[in-house]
Amino acid sequence: MTTRPAPRANLAIDGTRLWDSLMQMGQIGGTPRGGCNRQALTAEDAAGRALFRRWCEAAGAHVTVDGLGTMVARREGRADLPPVMIGSHLDTQPTGGKFDGVLGVLAGLEVLRRLDEAGIRTLRPIEVVNWTNEEGCRFAPAMLASAAYAGVLPVDTALAARDRDGVSLGDALDSIGARGDRPVNGPAPFAYLELHIEQGPILEAEGIDIGVVTGGQGLRWHDLTLTGFESHAGSTPMRLRRDALRAAAQVIEEIARIAERHAPAGVGTVGQLAVAPNSRNVIPGEVRLSVDLRHPDATSLAAMDAEFRAWLAALATTGVGAALTEVAATEPVHFDTHLADLVRARALGLGLTTRDIISGAGHDAFHMASIAPSVMIFTPCRDGVSHNEAEDILPVWAENGANVLLGVALDLADTPA
Amino acid sequence: MTTRPAPRANLAIDGTRLWDSLMQMGQIGGTPRGGCNRQALTAEDAAGRALFRRWCEAAGAHVTVDGLGTMVARREGRADLPPVMIGSHLDTQPTGGKFDGVLGVLAGLEVLRRLDEAGIRTLRPIEVVNWTNEEGCRFAPAMLASAAYAGVLPVDTALAARDRDGVSLGDALDSIGARGDRPVNGPAPFAYLELHIEQGPILEAEGIDIGVVTGGQGLRWHDLTLTGFESHAGSTPMRLRRDALRAAAQVIEEIARIAERHAPAGVGTVGQLAVAPNSRNVIPGEVRLSVDLRHPDATSLAAMDAEFRAWLAALATTGVGAALTEVAATEPVHFDTHLADLVRARALGLGLTTRDIISGAGHDAFHMASIAPSVMIFTPCRDGVSHNEAEDILPVWAENGANVLLGVALDLADTPA
Repeated sequence: MTTRPAPRANLAIDGTRLWDSLMQMGQIGGTPRGGCNRQALTAEDAAGRALFRRWCEAAGAHVTVDGLGTMVARREGRADLPPVMIGSHLDTQPTGGKFDGVLGVLAGLEVLRRLDEAGIRTLRPIEVVNWTNEEGCRFAPAMLASAAYAGVLPVDTALAARDRDGVSLGDALDSIGARGDRPVNGPAPFAYLELHIEQGPILEAEGIDIGVVTGGQGLRWHDLTLTGFESHAGSTPMRLRRDALRAAAQVIEEIARIAERHAPAGVGTVGQLAVAPNSRNVIPGEVRLSVDLRHPDATSLAAMDAEFRAWLAALATTGVGAALTEVAATEPVHFDTHLADLVRARALGLGLTTRDIISGAGHDAFHMASIAPSVMIFTPCRDGVSHNEAEDILPVWAENGANVLLGVALDLADTPA
Repeated sequence: MTTRPAPRANLAIDGTRLWDSLMQMGQIGGTPRGGCNRQALTAEDAAGRALFRRWCEAAGAHVTVDGLGTMVARREGRADLPPVMIGSHLDTQPTGGKFDGVLGVLAGLEVLRRLDEAGIRTLRPIEVVNWTNEEGCRFAPAMLASAAYAGVLPVDTALAARDRDGVSLGDALDSIGARGDRPVNGPAPFAYLELHIEQGPILEAEGIDIGVVTGGQGLRWHDLTLTGFESHAGSTPMRLRRDALRAAAQVIEEIARIAERHAPAGVGTVGQLAVAPNSRNVIPGEVRLSVDLRHPDATSLAAMDAEFRAWLAALATTGVGAALTEVAATEPVHFDTHLADLVRARALGLGLTTRDIISGAGHDAFHMASIAPSVMIFTPCRDGVSHNEAEDILPVWAENGANVLLGVALDLADTPA
């Protein structure tokens, strides 16, 4: 693709309106500590979706919904060419913040609003997408809907995913009326853009305005079930125990050590854990836990996963059984270098500082990068805190990021081929 | 006290009836795997209590209930002297067995039935007690009602204990109509007897019929809250994490190591653990867990507790906060040597083998030993398995234990002073 000079260099989004929209969306599922609990396909998510639809339609966009509930707000172009797609997600963690995902969707909305107000008709259509179940806290895998859009995950598998209460994603969609009739396997857009908070401490610490995301970590997600033997906590001598929770403790420590051996880029986390029978007086017979390993380099990631599997095979000889199920596996992602150049150029044109950065978290853009030129734009976030009710950003960070997004979207939307 | 020769040496319980009663009670809260889930003050417990009451009344006993729901089935004696009390509990663990506690209560019932059938009127009254909430899995502490009976635990504290859903013990009592008007602080009986499965592997492994329980472990129970900082599992470098679950893993391992340093008698267990927010993609910000340390020697037990507290104080410097609350503390118990002699004599008179044994589990007899001469009688149990649906015993083990119980109860019930 070739890029023509930006035709409307002085167009800017309305930073106050963007911030007000972020605050208004944050009240849906808002928590007493200032965070947000708007998990995928809950009543709160339904309310957030309805608000987003009203805003998009008020900005003249046409909203369609696919079979996994993903919402696409489309502003037509002068030609019926593949669109410029801007996306992120409105779902949150159980004790999440107001900006993770939401910033990217509402900055996209702000692009639609500004073009509508200015009466600008771009060559290509512009689409703003709210992806279903990005977080992965209710249904695994995370980034479920973009994976299905990109053809990485079968739609039926996505619909059959179940939450902890046994509710399938399909039933959850229907329970809030979020299942649409647009096909899930979408056409490849001309380009895919995603604005997001960094969710790490680097940009703020270095005083940088805009992170140009050149790639992202790959990850391995597993479910692990450890099976020991329930017995009485008082009368079972230590040497005769088959304690599933002690085995779990060793897994937790080993996951951290593997990540530390692959420092500084490698990370490893056990975030979910459940004990059975979970009684004070009983040696645990079964523990189920999640395993999360990530690294931006494919070889290192494979090594981390292999080290864990080898270690676990040895553990299984201690009288506690281990059953490992891979839940998700994504390879490290390298974003489009030309799009990264556009981000850098637009940021510099606005007088903003930039640095290249690797995404530590997974994003829908990772899947979109497999079918279209894609890039992400990061804004700083306070103390690197995310997936936490204390997640916070400055209004000017949101405004800067949205203006870069607008500029790059215009560059691309007026590019014929 | 002095003991007269046993007057009815040939009286024996009905082993078949005892076994049938055990099986019938086991169906209330029975689990698919053959275990029992009849937790304290649930609907299942209410059904078990009603059945026990019907059986006692059919055997001519008068049932009263105290303010904590403890049931006392009394068979009057010829004189209004302090009674011989036989007790244990009908509540179970969530995935418990059919015999833990239940054997002691229903063997006591069998004593009442046999005396009723034989028309024997003992000098002293005989009481059979079903203690409320022995297991401690729903309300802490375990052995709650016997502690209150013995004056070790204030009644108001017992009533205010809350389960994981926030339901108080007082409300749970009322919800199943289990609160009676008998005062909780009971009079000291002449003697207290408790028959129980060993819940350990020793008797079966050595082919011994009857364990003469000379004492019991002391214990320290704590609740521990570890407070780290929730953050994103992908974008937070290992060195910046304050992972409450990794700290919990270190606690679990340290508890085991402390117990192993005090081998073979010391044991240590983390049986309960809950993670917040418990999401695959979030570094845990808070973990709550139970700590259980036991030893039959008071000095060793105090040392184990002190070692844990010192270790935990050092942990708190790693960026994860630790708040420890003592839930229960009982000192090692030494049972009455004269009563132990009676158990040995009755077992030998029946041609049964015995050995002295220390109880690894806590029992209501521990509290009763603080106000009355007390002893416990152990039967073998399969593979030492208890607090498990696979808990199992042979009918002849139950019958042997109940016959020793009957004999000792008669010895004592005909003892004037």
